[in-house]
Amino acid sequence: MTRLSIRLDFGASGRVGPGKIRLLELIDQLGSITQAGRNMGMSYRRAWLLIDDLNRLFCEPAVVTQMGGSGGGGASLTAFGQELVRRYRAIEADAERVAVPELDALERSLAPLPPQEPV
Amino acid sequence: MTRLSIRLDFGASGRVGPGKIRLLELIDQLGSITQAGRNMGMSYRRAWLLIDDLNRLFCEPAVVTQMGGSGGGGASLTAFGQELVRRYRAIEADAERVAVPELDALERSLAPLPPQEPV
Repeated sequence: MTRLSIRLDFGASGRVGPGKIRLLELIDQLGSITQAGRNMGMSYRRAWLLIDDLNRLFCEPAVVTQMGGSGGGGASLTAFGQELVRRYRAIEADAERVAVPELDALERSLAPLPPQEPV
Repeated sequence: MTRLSIRLDFGASGRVGPGKIRLLELIDQLGSITQAGRNMGMSYRRAWLLIDDLNRLFCEPAVVTQMGGSGGGGASLTAFGQELVRRYRAIEADAERVAVPELDALERSLAPLPPQEPV
Protein backbone atom coordinates (compact mmCIF):
# COMPACT_ATOMS: atom_id res chain seq x y z
CA MET A 1 0.00 0.00 0.00
CA THR A 2 1.42 3.36 -1.02
CA ARG A 3 1.73 5.91 1.77
CA LEU A 4 1.75 9.64 1.18
CA SER A 5 3.55 11.87 3.65
CA ILE A 6 3.72 15.63 3.67
CA ARG A 7 6.18 18.32 4.64
CA LEU A 8 5.11 21.88 5.43
CA ASP A 9 7.67 24.53 4.60
CA PHE A 10 7.00 27.86 6.37
CA GLY A 11 9.76 29.69 4.48
CA ALA A 12 12.40 31.28 6.71
CA SER A 13 10.44 30.24 9.83
CA GLY A 14 11.09 26.53 9.48
CA ARG A 15 9.55 23.24 8.51
CA VAL A 16 7.28 20.55 9.92
CA GLY A 17 7.38 17.01 8.57
CA PRO A 18 6.51 13.45 9.55
CA GLY A 19 9.41 13.07 12.01
CA LYS A 20 8.50 16.01 14.26
CA ILE A 21 4.82 15.05 14.22
CA ARG A 22 5.55 11.42 15.12
CA LEU A 23 7.76 12.67 17.96
CA LEU A 24 4.90 14.84 19.29
CA GLU A 25 2.52 11.88 19.16
CA LEU A 26 4.97 9.70 21.08
CA ILE A 27 5.57 12.42 23.72
CA ASP A 28 1.81 12.63 24.14
CA GLN A 29 1.65 8.86 24.56
CA LEU A 30 4.75 8.27 26.67
CA GLY A 31 4.99 11.55 28.64
CA SER A 32 8.72 11.82 28.05
CA ILE A 33 11.01 13.33 25.39
CA THR A 34 13.68 10.71 26.18
CA GLN A 35 11.28 7.77 25.76
CA ALA A 36 9.72 9.27 22.63
CA GLY A 37 13.14 9.85 21.05
CA ARG A 38 14.35 6.36 22.01
CA ASN A 39 11.25 4.88 20.40
CA MET A 40 12.31 6.57 17.14
CA GLY A 41 15.97 5.55 17.52
CA MET A 42 17.24 9.07 18.24
CA SER A 43 19.33 10.52 21.07
CA TYR A 44 17.79 12.70 23.78
CA ARG A 45 19.75 15.63 22.36
CA ARG A 46 18.38 15.13 18.85
CA ALA A 47 14.79 14.78 20.13
CA TRP A 48 15.20 17.84 22.34
CA LEU A 49 16.56 19.94 19.44
CA LEU A 50 13.60 18.98 17.23
CA ILE A 51 11.16 19.97 19.98
CA ASP A 52 13.03 23.20 20.71
CA ASP A 53 12.81 24.00 17.00
CA LEU A 54 9.03 23.42 17.02
CA ASN A 55 8.55 25.46 20.20
CA ARG A 56 10.27 28.46 18.57
CA LEU A 57 8.44 28.10 15.26
CA PHE A 58 5.02 29.08 16.60
CA CYS A 59 3.73 31.76 19.01
CA GLU A 60 2.95 29.08 21.58
CA PRO A 61 5.03 26.07 22.60
CA ALA A 62 3.90 22.62 21.44
CA VAL A 63 5.57 20.78 24.36
CA VAL A 64 6.07 21.71 28.02
CA THR A 65 8.33 19.90 30.47
CA GLN A 66 8.13 19.46 34.24
CA MET A 67 11.52 19.14 35.89
CA GLY A 68 12.32 16.80 38.78
CA GLY A 69 9.79 15.34 41.23
CA SER A 70 9.61 11.72 42.29
CA GLY A 71 8.83 10.62 38.72
CA GLY A 72 11.89 12.49 37.38
CA GLY A 73 9.84 15.12 35.53
CA GLY A 74 8.16 14.55 32.21
CA ALA A 75 6.86 16.20 29.08
CA SER A 76 3.42 16.78 27.66
CA LEU A 77 1.75 18.46 24.70
CA THR A 78 0.05 21.82 25.13
CA ALA A 79 -3.39 22.42 23.64
CA PHE A 80 -1.54 24.04 20.73
CA GLY A 81 0.70 20.95 20.36
CA GLN A 82 -2.42 18.75 20.15
CA GLU A 83 -3.90 21.13 17.56
CA LEU A 84 -0.70 21.04 15.48
CA VAL A 85 -0.75 17.22 15.35
CA ARG A 86 -4.46 17.20 14.51
CA ARG A 87 -4.08 19.76 11.70
CA TYR A 88 -1.05 18.00 10.21
CA ARG A 89 -2.82 14.61 10.21
CA ALA A 90 -5.94 16.23 8.72
CA ILE A 91 -3.89 17.75 5.86
CA GLU A 92 -2.21 14.37 5.31
CA ALA A 93 -5.53 12.45 5.27
CA ASP A 94 -7.11 14.96 2.87
CA ALA A 95 -4.07 14.80 0.59
CA GLU A 96 -4.09 11.00 0.59
CA ARG A 97 -7.82 10.95 -0.21
CA VAL A 98 -7.56 13.25 -3.24
CA ALA A 99 -4.44 11.43 -4.46
CA VAL A 100 -6.07 7.98 -4.68
CA PRO A 101 -6.59 7.87 -8.47
CA GLU A 102 -3.06 9.11 -9.24
CA LEU A 103 -1.49 6.80 -6.62
CA ASP A 104 -3.39 3.82 -8.04
CA ALA A 105 -2.09 4.61 -11.53
CA LEU A 106 1.51 4.85 -10.26
CA GLU A 107 1.16 1.62 -8.25
CA ARG A 108 0.15 -0.23 -11.41
CA SER A 109 3.46 0.90 -12.98
CA LEU A 110 5.66 -0.46 -10.16
CA ALA A 111 8.21 -3.10 -11.15
CA PRO A 112 7.68 -6.48 -9.46
CA LEU A 113 9.93 -6.91 -6.40
CA PRO A 114 12.81 -9.38 -6.83
CA PRO A 115 12.27 -12.62 -4.87
CA GLN A 116 13.54 -12.30 -1.28
CA GLU A 117 16.18 -14.58 0.22
CA PRO A 118 14.68 -16.59 3.07
CA VAL A 119 15.79 -15.13 6.45
CA MET B 1 3.81 31.61 1.75
CA THR B 2 3.67 28.06 3.11
CA ARG B 3 4.66 25.34 0.66
CA LEU B 4 3.46 21.77 0.94
CA SER B 5 5.62 19.01 -0.48
CA ILE B 6 4.81 15.32 -0.68
CA ARG B 7 6.67 12.05 -0.50
CA LEU B 8 5.28 8.83 -1.94
CA ASP B 9 6.36 5.68 -0.14
CA PHE B 10 5.84 2.52 -2.21
CA GLY B 11 6.76 0.20 0.66
CA ALA B 12 9.66 -2.15 -0.09
CA SER B 13 9.82 -0.88 -3.69
CA GLY B 14 11.11 2.58 -2.84
CA ARG B 15 10.15 6.22 -2.52
CA VAL B 16 9.62 9.26 -4.68
CA GLY B 17 9.92 12.74 -3.22
CA PRO B 18 10.56 16.34 -4.30
CA GLY B 19 14.29 15.80 -4.98
CA LYS B 20 13.90 13.05 -7.58
CA ILE B 21 11.03 14.88 -9.28
CA ARG B 22 12.99 18.15 -9.46
CA LEU B 23 15.92 16.21 -10.94
CA LEU B 24 13.64 14.73 -13.63
CA GLU B 25 12.32 18.20 -14.49
CA LEU B 26 15.85 19.57 -14.83
CA ILE B 27 16.96 16.62 -17.01
CA ASP B 28 13.96 17.32 -19.24
CA GLN B 29 14.97 20.98 -19.41
CA LEU B 30 18.76 20.62 -19.71
CA GLY B 31 19.09 17.27 -21.52
CA SER B 32 21.85 16.10 -19.19
CA ILE B 33 22.09 14.27 -15.86
CA THR B 34 25.37 16.07 -15.07
CA GLN B 35 23.89 19.53 -15.68
CA ALA B 36 20.68 18.70 -13.82
CA GLY B 37 22.60 17.39 -10.80
CA ARG B 38 24.96 20.39 -10.82
CA ASN B 39 21.95 22.71 -10.83
CA MET B 40 20.83 21.03 -7.60
CA GLY B 41 24.32 21.08 -6.07
CA MET B 42 24.87 17.33 -6.32
CA SER B 43 27.63 15.21 -7.83
CA TYR B 44 27.13 13.30 -11.09
CA ARG B 45 27.35 10.07 -9.07
CA ARG B 46 24.60 11.13 -6.66
CA ALA B 47 22.32 12.28 -9.51
CA TRP B 48 22.99 9.07 -11.43
CA LEU B 49 22.18 6.90 -8.39
CA LEU B 50 18.86 8.71 -7.87
CA ILE B 51 17.92 8.18 -11.51
CA ASP B 52 19.04 4.53 -11.43
CA ASP B 53 16.83 4.07 -8.37
CA LEU B 54 13.84 5.57 -10.20
CA ASN B 55 14.48 3.50 -13.32
CA ARG B 56 14.37 0.27 -11.27
CA LEU B 57 11.30 1.30 -9.27
CA PHE B 58 8.86 1.12 -12.17
CA CYS B 59 8.29 -1.31 -15.07
CA GLU B 60 9.57 1.31 -17.50
CA PRO B 61 12.56 3.63 -17.18
CA ALA B 62 11.92 7.33 -16.49
CA VAL B 63 15.19 8.50 -18.09
CA VAL B 64 17.16 7.21 -21.10
CA THR B 65 20.70 8.24 -22.01
CA GLN B 66 22.51 8.45 -25.32
CA MET B 67 26.22 7.79 -25.09
CA GLY B 68 28.87 9.63 -27.08
CA GLY B 69 28.30 11.50 -30.33
CA SER B 70 29.58 14.98 -31.13
CA GLY B 71 27.49 16.48 -28.30
CA GLY B 72 28.94 14.00 -25.78
CA GLY B 73 25.66 12.14 -25.32
CA GLY B 74 22.75 13.35 -23.24
CA ALA B 75 19.72 12.28 -21.29
CA SER B 76 16.00 12.67 -21.77
CA LEU B 77 12.74 11.66 -20.13
CA THR B 78 10.70 8.81 -21.55
CA ALA B 79 6.93 9.20 -21.97
CA PHE B 80 6.66 7.37 -18.64
CA GLY B 81 9.11 9.82 -17.03
CA GLN B 82 6.96 12.71 -18.22
CA GLU B 83 3.87 10.98 -16.85
CA LEU B 84 5.54 10.40 -13.48
CA VAL B 85 6.39 14.11 -13.12
CA ARG B 86 2.89 15.12 -14.20
CA ARG B 87 1.18 12.74 -11.74
CA TYR B 88 3.44 13.78 -8.85
CA ARG B 89 2.81 17.50 -9.48
CA ALA B 90 -0.93 16.83 -9.83
CA ILE B 91 -0.99 15.04 -6.44
CA GLU B 92 0.98 17.92 -4.92
CA ALA B 93 -1.32 20.60 -6.37
CA ASP B 94 -4.45 18.74 -5.23
CA ALA B 95 -2.98 18.27 -1.75
CA GLU B 96 -2.05 21.95 -1.50
CA ARG B 97 -5.53 22.98 -2.61
CA VAL B 98 -7.39 20.91 -0.01
CA ALA B 99 -4.91 21.95 2.70
CA VAL B 100 -5.50 25.71 2.33
CA PRO B 101 -7.78 26.21 5.38
CA GLU B 102 -5.50 24.17 7.69
CA LEU B 103 -2.35 25.84 6.33
CA ASP B 104 -3.88 29.29 6.84
CA ALA B 105 -4.68 28.43 10.46
CA LEU B 106 -1.11 27.21 11.09
CA GLU B 107 0.37 30.28 9.40
CA ARG B 108 -1.55 32.53 11.78
CA SER B 109 0.15 30.71 14.68
CA LEU B 110 3.72 31.28 13.41
CA ALA B 111 6.01 33.26 15.69
CA PRO B 112 7.25 36.56 14.19
CA LEU B 113 10.72 36.21 12.67
CA PRO B 114 13.52 37.91 14.60
CA PRO B 115 14.81 41.08 12.88
CA GLN B 116 17.51 40.25 10.33
CA GLU B 117 21.00 41.73 10.40
CA PRO B 118 21.57 43.90 7.32
CA VAL B 119 23.76 42.04 4.79
